[in-house]
Amino acid sequence: MLNETLFHNANGYLGVRSNYEEGYPEGYQTIRGEYINGFYDYADMKQAEKLYGLVEEKQTMPNLVDTQGIRLWIEDEEFSMFQGSVIKSTRTLDMRRGVTQRYLIWKSPHGRKIEIKIRRMASFLLLPLFTIEYSVRPLNFSGKLHIRSTHIGNVKNYFDTHDPRLAGDADQHIIPGKAEYLDGISIIFSRTLKSDLSVTSAVKNILSVPAQREYKLHGSTISEEFYIEGVCENSLQLTKYTVLCDSIRYPNCRKAALECIDQAVSVPLAVWYEKQENYLNGYWKNCALHIRGDRELSIAITYNLYQLIQSVGKDSHCSIAAKGLSGEGYEGHYFWDTEMFLLPFYSLTMPELARNLIEYRYATLDFARENARILGHQSGALFPWRTIMGKECSGYFPAGSAQYHINGAIAYSIINYYLLTNDLEFIEKCGAEIVFETARLWIDLGNYSNGKFVMNDVTGPDEYTCIVNNNYYTNLLAQFNLVWAVKLYKTLREAGKMETIQQKLQLKVTEINEFKHAAQAMYLPYDSDLDINPQDDSFLAKKALDLKNIPETDYPLLMHYHPLYLYRHQVCKQADTVLAYFILEDAQSTHTMKNSFKYYEKITTHDSSLSACIFSIMASRLGMREKAYTYFRESATMDIDDTYGNTKDGIHTADMGGTYMTVVYGFGGLRVKEDGLHFAPSLPNPWDEYDFKVHYVDSLLKIEVKKCTCIITLLNGTNKTIHVYGDPYQLHDKVCIPMKIVEDTDEI
Amino acid sequence: MLNETLFHNANGYLGVRSNYEEGYPEGYQTIRGEYINGFYDYADMKQAEKLYGLVEEKQTMPNLVDTQGIRLWIEDEEFSMFQGSVIKSTRTLDMRRGVTQRYLIWKSPHGRKIEIKIRRMASFLLLPLFTIEYSVRPLNFSGKLHIRSTHIGNVKNYFDTHDPRLAGDADQHIIPGKAEYLDGISIIFSRTLKSDLSVTSAVKNILSVPAQREYKLHGSTISEEFYIEGVCENSLQLTKYTVLCDSIRYPNCRKAALECIDQAVSVPLAVWYEKQENYLNGYWKNCALHIRGDRELSIAITYNLYQLIQSVGKDSHCSIAAKGLSGEGYEGHYFWDTEMFLLPFYSLTMPELARNLIEYRYATLDFARENARILGHQSGALFPWRTIMGKECSGYFPAGSAQYHINGAIAYSIINYYLLTNDLEFIEKCGAEIVFETARLWIDLGNYSNGKFVMNDVTGPDEYTCIVNNNYYTNLLAQFNLVWAVKLYKTLREAGKMETIQQKLQLKVTEINEFKHAAQAMYLPYDSDLDINPQDDSFLAKKALDLKNIPETDYPLLMHYHPLYLYRHQVCKQADTVLAYFILEDAQSTHTMKNSFKYYEKITTHDSSLSACIFSIMASRLGMREKAYTYFRESATMDIDDTYGNTKDGIHTADMGGTYMTVVYGFGGLRVKEDGLHFAPSLPNPWDEYDFKVHYVDSLLKIEVKKCTCIITLLNGTNKTIHVYGDPYQLHDKVCIPMKIVEDTDEI
Repeated sequence: MLNETLFHNANGYLGVRSNYEEGYPEGYQTIRGEYINGFYDYADMKQAEKLYGLVEEKQTMPNLVDTQGIRLWIEDEEFSMFQGSVIKSTRTLDMRRGVTQRYLIWKSPHGRKIEIKIRRMASFLLLPLFTIEYSVRPLNFSGKLHIRSTHIGNVKNYFDTHDPRLAGDADQHIIPGKAEYLDGISIIFSRTLKSDLSVTSAVKNILSVPAQREYKLHGSTISEEFYIEGVCENSLQLTKYTVLCDSIRYPNCRKAALECIDQAVSVPLAVWYEKQENYLNGYWKNCALHIRGDRELSIAITYNLYQLIQSVGKDSHCSIAAKGLSGEGYEGHYFWDTEMFLLPFYSLTMPELARNLIEYRYATLDFARENARILGHQSGALFPWRTIMGKECSGYFPAGSAQYHINGAIAYSIINYYLLTNDLEFIEKCGAEIVFETARLWIDLGNYSNGKFVMNDVTGPDEYTCIVNNNYYTNLLAQFNLVWAVKLYKTLREAGKMETIQQKLQLKVTEINEFKHAAQAMYLPYDSDLDINPQDDSFLAKKALDLKNIPETDYPLLMHYHPLYLYRHQVCKQADTVLAYFILEDAQSTHTMKNSFKYYEKITTHDSSLSACIFSIMASRLGMREKAYTYFRESATMDIDDTYGNTKDGIHTADMGGTYMTVVYGFGGLRVKEDGLHFAPSLPNPWDEYDFKVHYVDSLLKIEVKKCTCIITLLNGTNKTIHVYGDPYQLHDKVCIPMKIVEDTDEI
Repeated sequence: MLNETLFHNANGYLGVRSNYEEGYPEGYQTIRGEYINGFYDYADMKQAEKLYGLVEEKQTMPNLVDTQGIRLWIEDEEFSMFQGSVIKSTRTLDMRRGVTQRYLIWKSPHGRKIEIKIRRMASFLLLPLFTIEYSVRPLNFSGKLHIRSTHIGNVKNYFDTHDPRLAGDADQHIIPGKAEYLDGISIIFSRTLKSDLSVTSAVKNILSVPAQREYKLHGSTISEEFYIEGVCENSLQLTKYTVLCDSIRYPNCRKAALECIDQAVSVPLAVWYEKQENYLNGYWKNCALHIRGDRELSIAITYNLYQLIQSVGKDSHCSIAAKGLSGEGYEGHYFWDTEMFLLPFYSLTMPELARNLIEYRYATLDFARENARILGHQSGALFPWRTIMGKECSGYFPAGSAQYHINGAIAYSIINYYLLTNDLEFIEKCGAEIVFETARLWIDLGNYSNGKFVMNDVTGPDEYTCIVNNNYYTNLLAQFNLVWAVKLYKTLREAGKMETIQQKLQLKVTEINEFKHAAQAMYLPYDSDLDINPQDDSFLAKKALDLKNIPETDYPLLMHYHPLYLYRHQVCKQADTVLAYFILEDAQSTHTMKNSFKYYEKITTHDSSLSACIFSIMASRLGMREKAYTYFRESATMDIDDTYGNTKDGIHTADMGGTYMTVVYGFGGLRVKEDGLHFAPSLPNPWDEYDFKVHYVDSLLKIEVKKCTCIITLLNGTNKTIHVYGDPYQLHDKVCIPMKIVEDTDEI
């Protein structure tokens, strides 16, 4: 099932797992699926004990249809990977062309040899389009070939009761209508069981040679049969076009699907291939990370970047699911992952996609307000911990809705976008409202105790400690949120852009003062004996867990220890204090950060896939160069090497953004601050050089880091002031700065 | 449905709700049920998000059978409370005789008048026996009467999805076999759906007059029909005997039921009535609280005491369910209620029943050990928060399994029993093992921080604040548990009774030292500015909830506010610190207790039925006499006045023990200490006098509290030293002590 994920095709709107077209033997473990980003059904979520406000209905990403099926018979022998002999079999992903390929030479039990080439594409240009080009060449015989292309409406979601990270249900969410066959196009119009959404799948098969052709309709299944006289050494192609149109984007999705499939077949497939390649050329031109001297990891990084363009929603109806569109893990839900680990990448490289992601949150702001009321807040908005359409889907609130920090992540991503683009118009349109509403929430959440603004009973990103007081990370992000609410208020008012928002939100000046006051008084835990920031008020009073004595097989701990046991110990799934240092490095001294890093590193299991990249970035920041590289490797190869053992359920999309960040923020030392871009480049020992490009306001910058120098070039746009190793430089054309190598003497 | 609870018949083994024999119109809200204490089925408890160790199967108390049905036709008119005219209707509970009665005069739509008297009894002498004596007297006609007595095996549990305190499922837990009719006895042998238990119900109807008689078997329903020529003014009786025998107590429960029903009908019903009255005479003789000058409340108290003998298990297969045997609320589960609110009563009045209750816990000790392992503890035992047969049934662990204090309650109840009885043999047999295993658990739970023994991430009795550090109540009880583990170790060793236990538990001397050390170092939160004990480490840093501004309709808060909202505020469902003061009053100064009392009183909603009695006791202790009386009234009338609005689901059994405690511990000022019994009597202003009796070691004491004197009489047994108002007295015969009246000057 791993390859089904790794070689999936997606374009941010639809995703298709890389299942064998010909199918599998009965009982074979596979997750066969086709999904649409942002499309959902509702599912019951029964609470073991009912308490007020607990979520009892979640959204889930349905498996929509199965249009992958292509079966092949040679005379009376059916092609299968599990019969006859597979003489050659490769699966490749062409990241330049945006296609995947299977190549096979197969010998039937009766000795007939055949070559099969299968190329698949999820079009970046026509988002509802997914194509399979299926080529067959008899190698040692001429004879009858029979191809069956299927289009199956009756599909279910995958289900594993044992893994809380998967948690889907076996329910069938899609109720397919009767299959139709119309002018060579097969059509299935399906409705969701509960969410009142619909989707139409349309499939057209085009064969390159003449054939006897027939179709069969059986309920919500359509089979198209092709009977061909195969000629030895002569290749033939079946091109199978699928389009999936949903009622979220297309009010009349049946009509849209028919138009779309017409558009798809109006030009040869080669044209779509060419467009796909051109699109990706544009992507790689500005978004690639080029690393010289480390080919293997360079491929891993490129793979991860490829998944970023496959996963990201291309409109504001959706965001980026935890598993992208590659599988059913976490049920297609959006988490803070988008804002904290992915949005920085898009803001730096493709601001238009970053805007979509922010607009998606803006579109769900009313649900966030409603969610805040459910949780007892009189004002402000609290974004759901996990969601598709905007309502909370978290079943266990102590590790779900209690993660208020998602509000901070969303506000942070907006400010980060703003600092990178200066796009005040967009902020006026939707960013500011979010920032004010989240700021209000912090005020309603917290209270003053001994003159400090404290925030009790929240859960930080580290889910191994739930419902705590004054989580350092949360408080720091809240402070940032509040500070920026005040700044945006001033900036917008000065620009004459505040009036509409202020009226809409009934935002009072006294509130702005409250923001300011709370930000100034924000309590940030600090332990002077250890010179570290404790993760929360009581973290240091707990027993440390002796990770050395825990057997390998007990990881991830969440699968083997009761939550209370984990809560009661100093042990981190990810160290959120270390993450706080990356996000806002100026809140404490480097010395404190270093002590904390070392403290938390000892007790962090990295059971969260979000952990390694952050440890890498902070290791770079603190001059621990070897550690930075080790963590970077872990991040870069997580899915390719399936190091978490669950890539079968989908890629770890956030970590892929994290890999980008380990290079750009970590090795490149980029920080986006109010006074501009800051760099502090370092070059990992194994590398010869690396480069990347970033957008900044109206400019495009190229950063090349070599053994001895770092060259920053203004590729286009107006002059900028940048900072490298803390020193300001005027960037007219390019600057060359000698590399500083900070060695950490403490590092082993 | 309220009267169905209030007039239920139970004897600690079986319970029958007081439903109308003749039934109700279609759709009428009723909870019809017959239950056995300790009998259970398993039910799935799906967790919304699966985490390691969460409970996914609970036990639930099934509704077993319906043998209440008796329908009556006069000619062609069926008797019903919802047709014709009810000229007179009373329902009474005779607490001296242990029976309930309905008395009715009814006029049919056609004008036929009839008198119906129904007397019911759950026998204290033959526990499987429940009887209905149904008398009919035509008042203004002679004519045909038709009586149908039913025995129905197909029954379900009641279900209300909206109330977390009820939480049962509509599932049918009992799969009845085919009904049989054998020598005038109808028999249904039923199995539980999942727990592999069985139960047999046997019913015999005896009519006082000749009648045409027939029976019908239909699946698992048996109807016996009686056609009688009714004569004006002539009374006739149908006596319906039900016995319920379960496979927990009776390996062959069918055989046992047949023997039992034979035994039941072997003597006239009047003999059972007489035995019942004699049994209760004995009960009231030693257990009654006599109050003169307050008739209404005196009845309320007596009602509560009556429920205590109806509810308490009479063998060690069971304990006391939160709702006794009166309804399905909390699914028949046992909580800490038994040990903290009920066991003191039995230890003081009927030590043999107290022993049963302790033996029940002892019998489930292995499950408690297993539960501790699930929660990550290497040693010791952790009793489940709610259970029937010993396995945890708590669906939401932060307000369930995290309530480790149940261990303290159980240890406390054992020590309390020991102090009252000096029964070292029993302690050796089963008490000590529990005390050692619970002591071990505290050691495994806690850790040293700055030299103090701290216990993190537990939930105290106040469920409006979950998963906290150093809950004062929990830490204090743990300290008590540890101290007594050391004391019992010494005492048993000196008595030569320690060897077997020590070997069995592999208890090391180093562990005893650890107990001692942890007890000495136990951290007990104290705030010197306020001179109070904070409920936990962070309680005082939270916002206080302004209870005055919360509308009446928002109570109980748990039904209207998200748990996180409650956790984040200073608000108590019950104040566990105040409870701690009652249990162990010597841990802090009276001044601190008084400050705390006042502090917590302001923020306590008493949404828990366990709250009022404790506030009353502590108000007595602190000289707040009016408050003590007010809270006492609340406790005494809780079910009779249905002040919580959910008595329909069953009585609040713990509060009934609480009412007893408000008098004996509260007004009587009783404390059971190592140096003997301490009294500090006070007389509520409205009362003329009150008295009660308590067992102490080999003696029986009577305490009479009058306006000016308190008389303590040694009714039997050897001389004792007692303390009154702190002064020691030698009790040979009796002592008369002048009443001290402590007026609290602060009280409004």
